[in-house]
Amino acid sequence: MTMTATGPTTTDFSTLRWEGDIDGRLWLIDQTLLPTEYREINCRDLDAVCEAIRMLRVRGAPAIGVAAAYGVCVGLQNGAGDDRTALDARLEAVIDALAATRPTAVNLFWALQRMREVAVSLPADTSVEEVRQRLLDEARAIDAEDRQMCRAIGRHGAALLADGQGVLTHCNAGGLATADYGTALAVFYAAQEAGKTLHIYADETRPLLQGARLTSWELQRRGIDVTVICDSAAAQVMREGRVQAVVTGADRIAANGDAANKIGTYSVALAAAAHDVPFYVAAPTSTFDLSLASGDEIPIEQRAAEEITRGFGRQTAPEGVAVYNPAFDVTPARLIRALICERGIIEPVTTARIKEVVA
Amino acid sequence: MTMTATGPTTTDFSTLRWEGDIDGRLWLIDQTLLPTEYREINCRDLDAVCEAIRMLRVRGAPAIGVAAAYGVCVGLQNGAGDDRTALDARLEAVIDALAATRPTAVNLFWALQRMREVAVSLPADTSVEEVRQRLLDEARAIDAEDRQMCRAIGRHGAALLADGQGVLTHCNAGGLATADYGTALAVFYAAQEAGKTLHIYADETRPLLQGARLTSWELQRRGIDVTVICDSAAAQVMREGRVQAVVTGADRIAANGDAANKIGTYSVALAAAAHDVPFYVAAPTSTFDLSLASGDEIPIEQRAAEEITRGFGRQTAPEGVAVYNPAFDVTPARLIRALICERGIIEPVTTARIKEVVA
Repeated sequence: MTMTATGPTTTDFSTLRWEGDIDGRLWLIDQTLLPTEYREINCRDLDAVCEAIRMLRVRGAPAIGVAAAYGVCVGLQNGAGDDRTALDARLEAVIDALAATRPTAVNLFWALQRMREVAVSLPADTSVEEVRQRLLDEARAIDAEDRQMCRAIGRHGAALLADGQGVLTHCNAGGLATADYGTALAVFYAAQEAGKTLHIYADETRPLLQGARLTSWELQRRGIDVTVICDSAAAQVMREGRVQAVVTGADRIAANGDAANKIGTYSVALAAAAHDVPFYVAAPTSTFDLSLASGDEIPIEQRAAEEITRGFGRQTAPEGVAVYNPAFDVTPARLIRALICERGIIEPVTTARIKEVVA
Repeated sequence: MTMTATGPTTTDFSTLRWEGDIDGRLWLIDQTLLPTEYREINCRDLDAVCEAIRMLRVRGAPAIGVAAAYGVCVGLQNGAGDDRTALDARLEAVIDALAATRPTAVNLFWALQRMREVAVSLPADTSVEEVRQRLLDEARAIDAEDRQMCRAIGRHGAALLADGQGVLTHCNAGGLATADYGTALAVFYAAQEAGKTLHIYADETRPLLQGARLTSWELQRRGIDVTVICDSAAAQVMREGRVQAVVTGADRIAANGDAANKIGTYSVALAAAAHDVPFYVAAPTSTFDLSLASGDEIPIEQRAAEEITRGFGRQTAPEGVAVYNPAFDVTPARLIRALICERGIIEPVTTARIKEVVA
């Protein structure tokens, strides 16, 4: 289903990239192999794209959105037929398959809806080839906008951090979670570019260790001081005065500012509140879901027990033991000092302020 | 240095046991192999006992105390000489070696001090053999008292829990952490014996996974309902209303009730406070160190980076990345609803109440 290529040896990497025209290829870094192996895989068909999203080869809300947009283009390389009716039917099937991969990240549905709207907007007599071209253009636009969005988030967020500070982050809201620069980590990259030295504490982020495997990998690669800790040590690290701010990403943000993010984020937010450490969430406006009044309405993905009990080769719990493995939790708005999006800083985090900036 | 024997197939196990007379053997379960392999190892000499404690083959504050007491007897099987002067010198060297294995658990020093006092109390003309016999008697007494202490803690603590409750625990304060019945888990065993059904949530407890590997193993073996979760999910599990109490052990408790325990305990205590869930600490009086006014004075053991970066067999962080790995944290007394010791319940947790019960 996939082909492999060895990766670049420079400090740059492309989380995902499209090579060629409408019959081209989607390449993405297989993030399940990091940090010990860097490998780009070529998702040759729709199944391969869906599998890559489901298995977290590509992950992070914005990156999932971009991958899904290109995934539509991949899906139309087969079975699109010769006429518009067949194409439209295939398009809906492709979108449905991609939408079913992961339930929590709203960027996935947002990107697929943008793709659908492009097709719908085209006259009925538009050729199949032309529709596919316009869809690829749209996917490229989503990709390019994501890159610009990350830079803007970084710029706005960097102003919140001071030179020499310790900053804690959870999971990976980095270049690997977006087209290239990250959301939470964009703030660190922009601060670095502005001449500020930060000391980042990266929660390892059980069960899939995106912090240990991915965040520390990309920060190290970009020359930012990073220390990996167990998730459970975050509160102690704050108690020792090592951390002056927390910045995380988000997978979906409700109208009132409640933010769903990787399991453990809520725990970090509680610890930050107990230590008067400001807790910031960095996410593009595409992560906001204003149709949900509060975080109680955000669906939480439940994942397999084996992620916890057999995560890294060795069996770490007895045969047959029950496991509860929610992939996300919801941090209530009252624990979030400010939201950082590409349009600026949302503070205080209230329904009215969010509506003003995002709607 | 060690010999192995296959373990029992019943639901009973001996965390550690002495076989024979003063020239007998110390057997202990190699807990680093659980849950996939049950193996007892024979610590043939002082080095083997020290290595077993340092490498966490035997762990848990009370069990370390019992192991150290028997470790003194093992240490005197070689190099004790023929006269009392030589014996006393060897005894001090043995005690020093055992005391240097782990810095945080006070039970270790408490048990070694009891052993020292036995030798000191014996007349100068007591034979070497007689001193060694009295030391073995003392180690056996520490072992037996530990078993009784666990039962008493269980009895007192069980009264705090109601039938049908969900209860969260962190790390392993179980039979495997004591001579046989546990401290925090003793509360669950006693509740079960009193006819109460509990639903235990066991934090997996990174980095060494004592919760996933050991707590779930012994609860499952004793027929208690247990669900393993990531440490970072504890706050979310509370938010979902699944948990009505938290019970953990402790490695050292200061005069004011501040309690050092496995890293992550403090984070759980903060989450419990945020959800009005009572947080209990179960520990014998030997865990109290009234010479320390507060938890700020408790030394915190720092452990190797590899526990985090290569814990599961596979490398989970990039080469050369910095790691911060404190083995313990301190939960302030104000977050602890009550302390459960073998003499009863200490509530509220104040210096005065503790002095009354423990001193």
